[in-house]
Amino acid sequence: MWQQNEISKRLKINYPIIQAGMAGGPTTPQLVSAVSNAGGLGTLGAGYMTPEQTRSAIEEIRRLTGHSFGVNLFVPEAFEWDEGKVEASNRLLRPVREKLNLDNPSVSSKPSSETFLKQIEIIVQTGVPACTFTFGIPDKRVIDRLKDRHIAVIGTATTVEEAILNETAGMDMVVVQGSEAGGHRGSFAVPYEQGMIGTMALVPQAADQVHIPVIAAGGIMDGRGVLAALVLGAEAVQMGTAFVTCEESGADERHKEMILKSAENETAITSAFSGKPARGIRNAFIDLMEGKEKLLPDYPVQNALTKDIRAAAGKVNRPEWMSMWSGQGPRLSRRMPAGAKVREIVSEVEHHLEMMMK
Amino acid sequence: MWQQNEISKRLKINYPIIQAGMAGGPTTPQLVSAVSNAGGLGTLGAGYMTPEQTRSAIEEIRRLTGHSFGVNLFVPEAFEWDEGKVEASNRLLRPVREKLNLDNPSVSSKPSSETFLKQIEIIVQTGVPACTFTFGIPDKRVIDRLKDRHIAVIGTATTVEEAILNETAGMDMVVVQGSEAGGHRGSFAVPYEQGMIGTMALVPQAADQVHIPVIAAGGIMDGRGVLAALVLGAEAVQMGTAFVTCEESGADERHKEMILKSAENETAITSAFSGKPARGIRNAFIDLMEGKEKLLPDYPVQNALTKDIRAAAGKVNRPEWMSMWSGQGPRLSRRMPAGAKVREIVSEVEHHLEMMMK
Repeated sequence: MWQQNEISKRLKINYPIIQAGMAGGPTTPQLVSAVSNAGGLGTLGAGYMTPEQTRSAIEEIRRLTGHSFGVNLFVPEAFEWDEGKVEASNRLLRPVREKLNLDNPSVSSKPSSETFLKQIEIIVQTGVPACTFTFGIPDKRVIDRLKDRHIAVIGTATTVEEAILNETAGMDMVVVQGSEAGGHRGSFAVPYEQGMIGTMALVPQAADQVHIPVIAAGGIMDGRGVLAALVLGAEAVQMGTAFVTCEESGADERHKEMILKSAENETAITSAFSGKPARGIRNAFIDLMEGKEKLLPDYPVQNALTKDIRAAAGKVNRPEWMSMWSGQGPRLSRRMPAGAKVREIVSEVEHHLEMMMK
Repeated sequence: MWQQNEISKRLKINYPIIQAGMAGGPTTPQLVSAVSNAGGLGTLGAGYMTPEQTRSAIEEIRRLTGHSFGVNLFVPEAFEWDEGKVEASNRLLRPVREKLNLDNPSVSSKPSSETFLKQIEIIVQTGVPACTFTFGIPDKRVIDRLKDRHIAVIGTATTVEEAILNETAGMDMVVVQGSEAGGHRGSFAVPYEQGMIGTMALVPQAADQVHIPVIAAGGIMDGRGVLAALVLGAEAVQMGTAFVTCEESGADERHKEMILKSAENETAITSAFSGKPARGIRNAFIDLMEGKEKLLPDYPVQNALTKDIRAAAGKVNRPEWMSMWSGQGPRLSRRMPAGAKVREIVSEVEHHLEMMMK
């Protein structure tokens, strides 16, 4: 079962299980290294990090594991700074700020492509084994720079067409993200609504249409999901929510608890937290902003406008104003060490296979 | 692999593959019997049939196969006849009617519970082996009447809660319908938007929470999907779109062609055809009605208002005004005999299992 395939060879991992590079807290060096030490691929979510934070986290991961790991980056894109939308957003956010005793934010958003290129250089300098991308495909020079250093480059797609675009751009492999997935939608070539394809349908259709290996994501929470994804034609899986509730995860404790107690139909897609659509546990903030998302500024402006709200909500135990990303499988979430989670998945896969052969 | 499980024993089938009981044309006696003769469970979609049509189709199926088969019925529910909404709908439909040279419809909708109860009696009298339900759970007397005659009763759910409601009501097994599925959403205890759970996430969560066997539906198109669903905890699969394009299917030729040439992200959910949300290939009709669905009357009133449009569109080769139900896996659709499709799935499953064991 676990013989090496193209992905496990390329990424130098024992099991084709990738912990998603979730930005904003969950992917502590402890989580990343625990997954890698257990034979999977831990991934640092550096999407919101400064170059300095990125370097420091990579160095910490290096101290904690000698195994392969990855870093996930957000591909910067053009965005509009629309003062009218910033004002509209601040008006909508005012009642929340008042409840949390927060002043209006002072936001000076700056282009993030400079940060992104510095992060790429840090990845090259520190020789990170794999670099995964969300929100699009980076410039050819970036891809070439990484590939020249034998760093595996992994894109994200939500449709077959996006998977083909990743292949054409030279990605070594591509994550296909089904509609079940928690956190940000990776759609970049289509409006996100046109990229809401269930994992069961997306994986085989993508696997048939690209030659690079496909990594399945979305709703995969345990050994059943991993084996099902491999059967569908994926060579590996990427799991986010399943690792958010692990002990080493840096996710806020309320976020973990909320996932652990939620049902499969208690998530919603919202762009109100960051300006980009993402799936999380439905709460008062999502309800408040529902139907008003077209009034809000683009990512990353909206993200900057809500940053202090999310942080303050965590501090004063108000999960109703926090972003609590989760996929559609929260009933399958468990609180356990991440290494034990990887080992449990491996046993479950082996057990299921044995049962099927009877 | 194909040893008998609870479902295949109860339904007396060799392979746990159920052809969905799609109303409105596709499920000819030829299609139903071809699937049953190949070892799966063919199902007559009798949702829109009169009692006489139901009886006649069952008799024809009996002539074509000695094997087990099922009949699918729509559970009748209260609906409002809102003259204002009927007028609003007719206003919206007028430009389409003009293009098709159709007069305003003369619709006299009547409660359908009488038809439903007559269909139940026909199923009892003719000893149909299995009866599947969509749009809710029938009255206890109906369930008891069927179970007393040893007719298997199978419900439909789109959430774990709906699966539990089916179990509690005494259903022998339950179809859990993932968001990928084509045709009508089976949601009945929640608004349909809250029942849009991807198959990969829904199946294991439902299988963990109910004791009756779970049948997976949504995005399953070939042996990969069937094996994946079984791995996820289902004891059988239900496949609709995969059989729509089969030779024996009575679906309109343009409908078949459109599925065969569509991509995974060319479907949309609309309630504009029938008054209930359903997934089909996006076309001009869906675009025209988008965002106006709240103005339209309930099912089955809207269904009656658009019936002549859909029929006329088929006759004059205008697929843009037809309902062309499809799940999110159209790239995997093939035109072939239904029996060959069942046999192909069986070989694919066996082949994939062998590959996994290496």
